[in-house]
Amino acid sequence: MFIHQVCFWLKQGTSDAAKEQLIADCRQYLGNVPAVRQLWAGPPAMTPREVVDNSYQVGLLVVMDDSKGHDIYQTHPLHLEFI
Amino acid sequence: MFIHQVCFWLKQGTSDAAKEQLIADCRQYLGNVPAVRQLWAGPPAMTPREVVDNSYQVGLLVVMDDSKGHDIYQTHPLHLEFI
Repeated sequence: MFIHQVCFWLKQGTSDAAKEQLIADCRQYLGNVPAVRQLWAGPPAMTPREVVDNSYQVGLLVVMDDSKGHDIYQTHPLHLEFI
Repeated sequence: MFIHQVCFWLKQGTSDAAKEQLIADCRQYLGNVPAVRQLWAGPPAMTPREVVDNSYQVGLLVVMDDSKGHDIYQTHPLHLEFI
């Protein structure tokens, strides 16, 4: 399996609506790339532990079969539309 | 869903065997905690992209239903044995 994990640190002052749109876009665009087996997107859980980084605003996790799947993902039209 | 993602930066000089043992322990101990729905452990994919952090030696990803599952995970005997 190939795990692709992204932390988005958004510009200060980004609205909650824009943040929610980013999460929705992750699911709609990236979640439909054929190489994607599983995808989760959402805010950090804000677990109150010293070792946990809660500084990002949106987390994205994509599971693919292998690095070939990741290559397909990075250059897929849906991904390019997303970015 | 609750995503628990860990990067292990091992002490310099840690042997490959010890690294492989850590990966095996993640799967054997943590993978058997009942709250765990899915678990992956392994080395970074070393994707040659500037934005990618390949500095850690072992990555662990655990999927649980919710924060209650994460509470169970953190205090479960198998997790305590692992750490």
